[in-house]
Amino acid sequence: MHFKVELPNWVIEESEKLPEIMPTLESQMEAVIRFSRINFQKETGGPFAAGIFEKETGKRVVIGVNRVVPGNNSTAHAEIVTIGMAQAILETFDLGGPGMPNYRLVVNARPCAMCFGSIPWSGVRSLAFAAAGEEVEKITGFDEGPIHPQWQQELEARNIEVIENVMAVEAYEVFREFAASDSPIYNGRSGESS
Amino acid sequence: MHFKVELPNWVIEESEKLPEIMPTLESQMEAVIRFSRINFQKETGGPFAAGIFEKETGKRVVIGVNRVVPGNNSTAHAEIVTIGMAQAILETFDLGGPGMPNYRLVVNARPCAMCFGSIPWSGVRSLAFAAAGEEVEKITGFDEGPIHPQWQQELEARNIEVIENVMAVEAYEVFREFAASDSPIYNGRSGESS
Repeated sequence: MHFKVELPNWVIEESEKLPEIMPTLESQMEAVIRFSRINFQKETGGPFAAGIFEKETGKRVVIGVNRVVPGNNSTAHAEIVTIGMAQAILETFDLGGPGMPNYRLVVNARPCAMCFGSIPWSGVRSLAFAAAGEEVEKITGFDEGPIHPQWQQELEARNIEVIENVMAVEAYEVFREFAASDSPIYNGRSGESS
Repeated sequence: MHFKVELPNWVIEESEKLPEIMPTLESQMEAVIRFSRINFQKETGGPFAAGIFEKETGKRVVIGVNRVVPGNNSTAHAEIVTIGMAQAILETFDLGGPGMPNYRLVVNARPCAMCFGSIPWSGVRSLAFAAAGEEVEKITGFDEGPIHPQWQQELEARNIEVIENVMAVEAYEVFREFAASDSPIYNGRSGESS
């Protein structure tokens, strides 16, 4: 018995057009934000994408996208998908294991409570994101869930660097386009309690 | 490009021996705790298991186990695996969707920060667990991560019932056996920062 978490074909095709080394955080974020837009436009998932890159060189491991609705899997947020893909590619459950370079997770929005909790386990040593959580909730109606009130300090206490507000204007633009579209908002427990 | 989250064969075999309807929470938890023990003994993952059952009838959807180390996937905690399996089986990303019965997540230990955050998205309307988080950390050395300080109230505010301390004595026994074994503790960032 199993389930599969799969990236859509366009992700593979678009990724092949990108350079293997993307040295600036801005070039990484630009690609991540572009993938978040294509993902909802093509109806292959919600407006979220994430990438994992070597922190020092900018070498790209993988860019992944939200797959909740098409994958029938509420845990398939961009970060969970991308961490799982990177670990499958690098054949390790710990991206911070002995002998590994430092890895950075780059996301188009602040992680939700679940994805925040996934970061210490993943082994990445840096998180960079664009849009702030409250703003995304306001624009889109997503309930980002009960994240730890001191989530940033909690990551830093585990030696995980946090860089916020990277190309946030460009990220908000995607969420506004999403909100203006007919795309579904998929918070949990959409039915009545029976 | 994809990754697979797979239950080991013994989970299928042991599950086939269980009745389809497990009417009491204790019978559900007994099975979940038993699976948590077998999982580390057979080296198919960490000492964690979770089940999803219909709350009113006790009908079993699936029991899943932690698959982090064998699956090379730090997000493959028992809850994430089991929610994904249940949603794949029921072909929905929202176990609380229109027309669905109420579902309960049954776990042998308090969810970590990530798994806590996954619960509101999943659609389950009830969480029952055995061992407390701090005790598990003390016995095993796992860092359960930065869970929201008012996590229980946060779930209840979203109409998700929380039942704690179900067969906790039996659950602790498994963690003590695990701690006394040579099994690996796999907190993230095990290597030096480079």
